[in-house]
Amino acid sequence: MHFTSESIETVVEIFSSLPSIGRKTAQRLTYHLLKQPQEFVDKFSNSLLTMKKNVRFCSVCYNFTEKNPCPICSSQKRNRKLICVVEEPNDVLAIEKTSEYSGMYHVLHGAMNPLEGIGPNDLKIRELVSRINDEVEEVILALDPNVEGEVTTQYLSKLLKPLGIKVSRIARGVPIGSDLEFADEATLSRAMEGRIQL
Amino acid sequence: MHFTSESIETVVEIFSSLPSIGRKTAQRLTYHLLKQPQEFVDKFSNSLLTMKKNVRFCSVCYNFTEKNPCPICSSQKRNRKLICVVEEPNDVLAIEKTSEYSGMYHVLHGAMNPLEGIGPNDLKIRELVSRINDEVEEVILALDPNVEGEVTTQYLSKLLKPLGIKVSRIARGVPIGSDLEFADEATLSRAMEGRIQL
Repeated sequence: MHFTSESIETVVEIFSSLPSIGRKTAQRLTYHLLKQPQEFVDKFSNSLLTMKKNVRFCSVCYNFTEKNPCPICSSQKRNRKLICVVEEPNDVLAIEKTSEYSGMYHVLHGAMNPLEGIGPNDLKIRELVSRINDEVEEVILALDPNVEGEVTTQYLSKLLKPLGIKVSRIARGVPIGSDLEFADEATLSRAMEGRIQL
Repeated sequence: MHFTSESIETVVEIFSSLPSIGRKTAQRLTYHLLKQPQEFVDKFSNSLLTMKKNVRFCSVCYNFTEKNPCPICSSQKRNRKLICVVEEPNDVLAIEKTSEYSGMYHVLHGAMNPLEGIGPNDLKIRELVSRINDEVEEVILALDPNVEGEVTTQYLSKLLKPLGIKVSRIARGVPIGSDLEFADEATLSRAMEGRIQL
């Protein structure tokens, strides 16, 4: 817009390009930054560069890390018999937050999507297979509950089972704390299928 | 969290400190940036510094600007008889987007809030008064429709009327496109009060 300055517009456009940020939020964030002290903006700017410079993929699990191998892969407290396979680094964060899982991880960096031409070679699948040794007892597939996650789960299941390890998937069902009547049909039918005898 | 790196955590914390961004969104944004090419992160980082360096307050209307006076204040096409008073620079953006208003602006940078000790001297009110000259015919008060906006509107009205100019406020009523039944009581009663004879 002609009445704002170019340097403001540049920042608004960058914020708008980030996921889940619309133009209005981008404007609010930009104007908020303009009101902050110089030190805050300096810190923001520098921390982006520092992060980008220091963070790499862990050469074992392919999660983001500053140290290689990452803290989880190099920890003595984790159960090396279990590998939980996820699509994205964010998924590791989500599972760690539950404090229920103490095994290892493997980040695929995406899921198979035939329509967009994303196949097994575009994901860290070869790297996963090369991690399967005598120590590993079970691979837990924790991919997103959508078509891409489903395709990838089936593919990995067929690929890993012949290696003589247990392959499992996380349960799909009605989310805790929700109302049964608001669950969609697909979720409810999965929940019925996956019912457990009491 | 111990398993993420310090430089990632720093960026997550900065994003979380911005308005309307929770911790989960902050994580998603941070991980998104990690996946972007170096050039994108460089551009983001630099554009924040450039903006902060170049953008100042317009010495006339106190909107953010790179040139002083700002494009609106220095434009020959704007109607200098009207000054629209708003709380924040974002409000100028919002009003300009309507393309209905062609007068000048004045940004107060906040609203009076006795509970938080924000009085007239903390806002650009003296600067507004000093702009009132023979050329100005009307001041339109366009403050937020809440308690602070109301207090400031009343204060400015009493301050400006003795200067012999017309002082108006924008209409409060039911928003266009909404359902009357969903309007809250305060909005509806303002809409009744402000009814217009047809």
